[in-house]
Amino acid sequence: MNTRLSVWAVSGIGEVRPGDDLAGIIATAALAEPECLADGDVVVVTQKVVSKAENRLVAVDPDDPRDHKRVVEAETVRALRRRGDLVISETRHGFICANAGVDLSNVERGWAALLPEDSDRSARRIRDGLRARAGVEVAVIVSDTFGRVWRRGLTDVAIGSAGIGPILDHRGTRDTQGRELQVTEVAVVDELAATADLVLGKATGLPVAVIRGIDPSWFRPGEVRREIVRPASEDLFR
Amino acid sequence: MNTRLSVWAVSGIGEVRPGDDLAGIIATAALAEPECLADGDVVVVTQKVVSKAENRLVAVDPDDPRDHKRVVEAETVRALRRRGDLVISETRHGFICANAGVDLSNVERGWAALLPEDSDRSARRIRDGLRARAGVEVAVIVSDTFGRVWRRGLTDVAIGSAGIGPILDHRGTRDTQGRELQVTEVAVVDELAATADLVLGKATGLPVAVIRGIDPSWFRPGEVRREIVRPASEDLFR
Repeated sequence: MNTRLSVWAVSGIGEVRPGDDLAGIIATAALAEPECLADGDVVVVTQKVVSKAENRLVAVDPDDPRDHKRVVEAETVRALRRRGDLVISETRHGFICANAGVDLSNVERGWAALLPEDSDRSARRIRDGLRARAGVEVAVIVSDTFGRVWRRGLTDVAIGSAGIGPILDHRGTRDTQGRELQVTEVAVVDELAATADLVLGKATGLPVAVIRGIDPSWFRPGEVRREIVRPASEDLFR
Repeated sequence: MNTRLSVWAVSGIGEVRPGDDLAGIIATAALAEPECLADGDVVVVTQKVVSKAENRLVAVDPDDPRDHKRVVEAETVRALRRRGDLVISETRHGFICANAGVDLSNVERGWAALLPEDSDRSARRIRDGLRARAGVEVAVIVSDTFGRVWRRGLTDVAIGSAGIGPILDHRGTRDTQGRELQVTEVAVVDELAATADLVLGKATGLPVAVIRGIDPSWFRPGEVRREIVRPASEDLFR
């Protein structure tokens, strides 16, 4: 367990467009920061720029709210709740979030951004690209902003990851009293996504953060979709 | 918006006992770290040591699981779901969490720790104590480890806070395209609690972390109970 972390936003990433080489853009910008980029760093990339680079944009009539609604419905596999214009959607990835993650902010007027098709794959591609372009072995997390059921306010969570175990399993670990821990599974990728949001904010044009100091034992293969998304069978609230 | 943060665990905090001066213990230990403690730091304190200092401990028969269950039921205002030994409880604070937050780990055998009576007040007391003992104006967050409905794994969240706005409201802020942001309310105290957990872990005997670099505009009065706990009336899943 490392007991010190540094976190910083990567500046100098301009507007990202469909087809852009996102890993190349991130590598150039991250290497220009004073801290550079190093083996064992965690690179958190917000969903919006991933969706833009992957051309997950659809045209919507900006003057017709029903058009946005139509896109949300198309991305919703199942609606868990509806209230006014808000839908709590299950997406085809198994995420449960507001309006199927379809987002109009920080996108050009007349367009909506959909979630990446497979954000674990997106994370792997960025990780591979950073290895190729910057010569570093990092973990990558793709983050998005989700609401919570019983708590107000939103927090950033991981919707994709590569090179890091999404869950840190303490099973069998003993506490300071020598008793087996009750709390065994920590969603570290979600905690890392939340950490990145503290330096990125929502309106800053800063889509990438780096977190340095993570324990090397946390790095292993693993996917958000397989480890974090809770199957309906073990879900008490679906 | 600040774009750089440092996070560290405070070492040298030993076993905390009922009646201990927790702010004094934290001040001594935090001032001994190389980074010291400074105005504008956020001090995150895990619930267990707060509950111990406030003597929120009850005796349980370690050989009789029904005794633990009895304590959980007493702390549960309403049970939302039950599965086997697990209860998803609403506590008298309005928190919804497993087993009403009653915890046996990192507590001496034969004892269970309850949540603080009022963890916003606990945070205020620690904040006042740190001002008195270390001469610093910091924000304080009391954190605990909660599960989530649709995602596996647990993350640390804030159950109390003092000196920081639990919610950062971007309402009226415009995005990089000049459009009003859809995502307006960020639960920064929960993101800070999650950040602290990355350096504290669960079995380390490290109950306090410091986060440095938070934007000064985030500091204001505010309580988790009033701002983060979602009233049943606006809750779609209760």
